[in-house]
Amino acid sequence: MTTVSIIGNGNMAKAIGGVVAAGGSTVQYLGRDGGTVDGSIVVLAVPYPEVDAVLATYGAQLAGKAVVDITNPVDFATFDGLTVPSDSSAAAVIAAALPESTVLKAFNTTFAATLATGKVGAETTTVLIAGDDDAAKAELGGLVRAGGLNAVDAGSLRRARELEALGFLQISLAAAERVSWTGGFAVVA
Amino acid sequence: MTTVSIIGNGNMAKAIGGVVAAGGSTVQYLGRDGGTVDGSIVVLAVPYPEVDAVLATYGAQLAGKAVVDITNPVDFATFDGLTVPSDSSAAAVIAAALPESTVLKAFNTTFAATLATGKVGAETTTVLIAGDDDAAKAELGGLVRAGGLNAVDAGSLRRARELEALGFLQISLAAAERVSWTGGFAVVA
Repeated sequence: MTTVSIIGNGNMAKAIGGVVAAGGSTVQYLGRDGGTVDGSIVVLAVPYPEVDAVLATYGAQLAGKAVVDITNPVDFATFDGLTVPSDSSAAAVIAAALPESTVLKAFNTTFAATLATGKVGAETTTVLIAGDDDAAKAELGGLVRAGGLNAVDAGSLRRARELEALGFLQISLAAAERVSWTGGFAVVA
Repeated sequence: MTTVSIIGNGNMAKAIGGVVAAGGSTVQYLGRDGGTVDGSIVVLAVPYPEVDAVLATYGAQLAGKAVVDITNPVDFATFDGLTVPSDSSAAAVIAAALPESTVLKAFNTTFAATLATGKVGAETTTVLIAGDDDAAKAELGGLVRAGGLNAVDAGSLRRARELEALGFLQISLAAAERVSWTGGFAVVA
């Protein structure tokens, strides 16, 4: 039985926890201010600007674990780009800060509502997962599928750049009311 | 009656021409080696590496027209990134080369098959259009809708960076057989 620790208490934390729990795995919710990490998979379900503080609090405990970055590092001051270098990604920045962890990018292209309902329009919600460790990607993908969603391996962690571009585009379309927060991009196999 | 000139003769040229013709507009197909551009909208339906040659041939005729860039400047040598600067886009490069034209980014996130069938899975195919000229975007969007597809304004031409990231991701997923060339990303309003 896998235990997944989720750091954060917002809509995304709850939605991801719901998927994991629906698949039969154990979910541990942790606050930003510390605690003992039980899970072998740890989801950083906080906004990107809060990641540094979370890593300062939990970093040592994350060694040897799979750490899932779900962030979209949108520059909300301009809404015209990201706050990470354009040839990089939040996931790459986090991976550099956690050299003893296996960092995966996932859940940043799925709105909370589509994780909760399992649907984007008529299509089953798909979680795109990027990372350099095939076993970790497969394990996370298995948890997602057990929870009733689709999971697709999006390639190496370098593809986090593209996943974050997709996440930003989707957020910008929703903010402009050109898609709804219950819709967005569906993945059709 | 709008005339749309399409430069190129590949699958995408034919698929885009099919959409435009279905909407009742006139389509002119032009080869890479020259001809008289009749359309007020010109689609550069050639692979990105051929754009320079097309601009050398047709550039002067494109002044005052809306020029639609559909390219995905994937680095096919590495399949691990794009050949344009990471903070830019093929559309931005083309716009810089055509200061007297109105450049739009469109059709790079829709596979030819989904333009032809009008469907991505159960969803109507959506053409995402980025550009800095609202009237030109609205005109192209109108042609797309008349042809039976959805069109969504994806924002300013700076969003071409994200559209090209999406296009690259979609191509990489299809090449890895994780989605099919008749599927990919659907947009759910």
